Amino acid sequence: LYSSDHEKLRKMLDDRIIEAFFYAKKYVGDNKTDRKSVANHLENQLLSLIGLSYQFSEVDQAEEWRRKSLANLTQHIQTTIDRIQNPSNCSKAKILVCNLDKQCGFGCQLHHVAYCFVVAFGEGRTLVMEGDGKEWRIHFGAPYTGYSHNGWTSTFLPVTSCTVKDVIAGSGPVNWESDRSARVVSLPIVDSLRILPSYLPLSFPSSISDQLIKFHTNPPAFFIAQFLWYLMRSNEELQKQLNEAKEKISFSQGPIVGVQIRRTDKVGTEAAFHSLEEYMEWTEIYFKVEESRQGKKVKRRIFIATDDPSVFKEAKEKYPSYEIFGDEGNANTAQLDRRYTDSSLLGVITDIQLLSHCSHLVCTFSSQVCRMGYELAQVRQNTRGNEFHSLDDVYYFGGQQAHEQVAIEKHVAENDREIDMEVGDLLGIAGNHWDGFSKGTNRRTGKVGLYPSYKVKENWRIVDFPALPPL
Amino acid sequence: LYSSDHEKLRKMLDDRIIEAFFYAKKYVGDNKTDRKSVANHLENQLLSLIGLSYQFSEVDQAEEWRRKSLANLTQHIQTTIDRIQNPSNCSKAKILVCNLDKQCGFGCQLHHVAYCFVVAFGEGRTLVMEGDGKEWRIHFGAPYTGYSHNGWTSTFLPVTSCTVKDVIAGSGPVNWESDRSARVVSLPIVDSLRILPSYLPLSFPSSISDQLIKFHTNPPAFFIAQFLWYLMRSNEELQKQLNEAKEKISFSQGPIVGVQIRRTDKVGTEAAFHSLEEYMEWTEIYFKVEESRQGKKVKRRIFIATDDPSVFKEAKEKYPSYEIFGDEGNANTAQLDRRYTDSSLLGVITDIQLLSHCSHLVCTFSSQVCRMGYELAQVRQNTRGNEFHSLDDVYYFGGQQAHEQVAIEKHVAENDREIDMEVGDLLGIAGNHWDGFSKGTNRRTGKVGLYPSYKVKENWRIVDFPALPPL
Ligand SMILES: Nc1nc2c(ncn2[C@@H]2O[C@H](COP(=O)(O)OP(=O)(O)O)[C@@H](O)[C@H]2O)c(=O)[nH]1
Ligand SMILES: Nc1nc2c(ncn2[C@@H]2O[C@H](COP(=O)(O)OP(=O)(O)O)[C@@H](O)[C@H]2O)c(=O)[nH]1
Repeated sequence: LYSSDHEKLRKMLDDRIIEAFFYAKKYVGDNKTDRKSVANHLENQLLSLIGLSYQFSEVDQAEEWRRKSLANLTQHIQTTIDRIQNPSNCSKAKILVCNLDKQCGFGCQLHHVAYCFVVAFGEGRTLVMEGDGKEWRIHFGAPYTGYSHNGWTSTFLPVTSCTVKDVIAGSGPVNWESDRSARVVSLPIVDSLRILPSYLPLSFPSSISDQLIKFHTNPPAFFIAQFLWYLMRSNEELQKQLNEAKEKISFSQGPIVGVQIRRTDKVGTEAAFHSLEEYMEWTEIYFKVEESRQGKKVKRRIFIATDDPSVFKEAKEKYPSYEIFGDEGNANTAQLDRRYTDSSLLGVITDIQLLSHCSHLVCTFSSQVCRMGYELAQVRQNTRGNEFHSLDDVYYFGGQQAHEQVAIEKHVAENDREIDMEVGDLLGIAGNHWDGFSKGTNRRTGKVGLYPSYKVKENWRIVDFPALPPL
Repeated sequence: LYSSDHEKLRKMLDDRIIEAFFYAKKYVGDNKTDRKSVANHLENQLLSLIGLSYQFSEVDQAEEWRRKSLANLTQHIQTTIDRIQNPSNCSKAKILVCNLDKQCGFGCQLHHVAYCFVVAFGEGRTLVMEGDGKEWRIHFGAPYTGYSHNGWTSTFLPVTSCTVKDVIAGSGPVNWESDRSARVVSLPIVDSLRILPSYLPLSFPSSISDQLIKFHTNPPAFFIAQFLWYLMRSNEELQKQLNEAKEKISFSQGPIVGVQIRRTDKVGTEAAFHSLEEYMEWTEIYFKVEESRQGKKVKRRIFIATDDPSVFKEAKEKYPSYEIFGDEGNANTAQLDRRYTDSSLLGVITDIQLLSHCSHLVCTFSSQVCRMGYELAQVRQNTRGNEFHSLDDVYYFGGQQAHEQVAIEKHVAENDREIDMEVGDLLGIAGNHWDGFSKGTNRRTGKVGLYPSYKVKENWRIVDFPALPPL
């Protein structure tokens, strides 16, 4: 059934979990031992265990097998998207027209198009961009400004072979919410939807749900990432520039952690400030696990992407043992007064793409730049989906269907910040506090509060996508 | 490669280990939270993890597969033993004559014979008992006394078809230490050996070492247990009595923990006193893990074996929610002034055999009764070998070769009770303190002290046993 290596590592894992229990049982509650040194010992013990668990996941070349299986799924989805995007007769095909110009940053805009795209895909419609994407730009307050005046294809490949002219004979598109059966529809921005399309993340297709759940830790992210991936296919010029940027970073020489630090306009409005130390703490944790997995010293290497240029200097001063990659120039172009320019656009695309090449990400999932790096990494690397640490949110998709978990163990609140759970209770999760607890609403009791993250599992939202055949 | 269930549980395990780390990182070193409640939370979290790990080990019916594989090994070894014990020509066969009457308790005597047996087996010799086992008894100080005056076959099947008369033509056996090539040899008791036979535990045969290491957590115990199993094959009358004793305990209705409590002459001489509470604490831990594994409430049931009859009353009073099995009568016959009688012999055999039917053992491995229960359980149930908690020693075999472990992680002593280790260092283990640390000698530095048990693995002693072909 299983190989010897599988069995040996599994037993070792077993053993080591019990050893952690022995240690915790004796020392955590024991007043005679210094709390900090107990914490330190136990943390190292558990990091070593995480490394062992990682090692175990690689036995029998299982990682290659998983990666190949995910790569097959990627190919299957990409081919299906491509087929729907290139119908034989544009004037007969079902169409969804999407407005590109959501008034927000690049990540936000792309997620907006991805939302149109996945709904279009779900309904077997070809996604067409308003004005064929020629006027892609962004109005960001006055004065008029936009990333690019040169349109979608100044950076990316066209998303479809159909033009707006091909598809709309006479009357314009019908609003999807007023007539979902019309041949040509348009979608409002997700924020103003009255009906949530069932295809909206965190949904994923039933036709491939078994494989997705089997091979990936975050099927909804893996699935929606396919659309971002298709959207972000570079044109020749962009590809050249991306290749050059990538050349400067020795990705092949060992793991690199992508550290994305979102500051400027985000801080204090949509997210809290996080110091460099916080990012580096989790980076260091990643490398410790990596050392335990590999059983040897691992060189510390990071790639920094940020809209705060001062971070580069700070990192070099404070972390001299780290090899630090990243382009301060990109950070400079990300300043608010320069953000909506061609060079800023190139900067953010480059940073996102480079993040997607990293072995691991440390960032704030509240930032769409960070989430896009994570999303593209899934398709690029076909890895398991847990190669990140977010300092704030759990993974989400703006405007998503309610994210729910289900209790697999009963919980009795230990204090008044916690809530009770019975096995089978649904929890609407607001966030994981990354300290063993998540916060959310118990749908049965209506109570809001903390619950131990280990006592729940994801309640996947599996939906029929008629356009996607099984693999 | 693996099934969906395998992958799902593996990922869950991964996740939950990380969640334990998150919790430990935040709360263990944090002075704001009450230490006892942190300990309590973390212990429950880790117990749930142990249960999950157990659940994972059962996926794909892997436990059945393991059990079957071990059962095949058992059959292979038993058949080979049987063949060697029944040579076609006793007067030509190589023979080892063993004196049964080591002056000690039943467990001690049987382990002594097992030691003769495994050395005989290693050298392809037939084990023959001195006086054909007819005078098996024990001199335990004055006055003369012994378990039985009726010899080996009053309870067990004969170990060989050869009699002493068959095998010894003329001169008696030669001491093995003076001429290891003689056809007929005898072994001194292990305590007075000058040369340690390579076949002595914790050795196990190279011909089946891969399978043993793959399927069992304790290959040396599994292997030596085969000899005790062969020795303990009951005659018809004993079998009837054992069946009757077994009938009284509903083994088929769910897990029963075997609690063996060794008191009287052992306490203060060879072992420390352990209160019933200590045994019950680990029993309760077992049931908690079991509940997490099964995902439902599990009825508490124990079987008590002891030489201290007062334990039964105490247990019934203090643990009213427990269903308690066991025969106070057997405990009564185990009193020192009655120990060397036929009924005492029957009592200890019954207790040991019933212990070997239990799902889990809680006892002191310093007692040979406890270890024999554990050993026979391996052969009877063909389980993995970690279904026990010893309150004192790690598993050992009296007179064994040095038990060694090897460091797989560097350790820097955190206080002066601990010792340093480099990866690859050999550690002679004296004991596991079951609190995350083991005590032993670093063979490289000569230093004696504590080291984290999770940073070492067993250094198996694999030896060529020419008599045992591969399976
Ligand atoms: N080059 C670069 N630009 C960034 C970075 N972080 C933020 N920006 C700029 O700030 C914008 C932020 O808007 P958006 O993409 O919607 O992401 P969010 O606001 O972080 O959720 C980006 O699109 C970039 O223009 C970064 O790490 N690198
Ligand atoms: N029936 C019974 N007898 C026991 C038990 N524990 C100890 N004894 C008696 O005490 C003897 C102890 O000697 P031995 O078997 O060498 O084991 P040890 O002294 O515990 O290592 C046993 O053989 C029994 O005669 C028990 O749990 N049940």
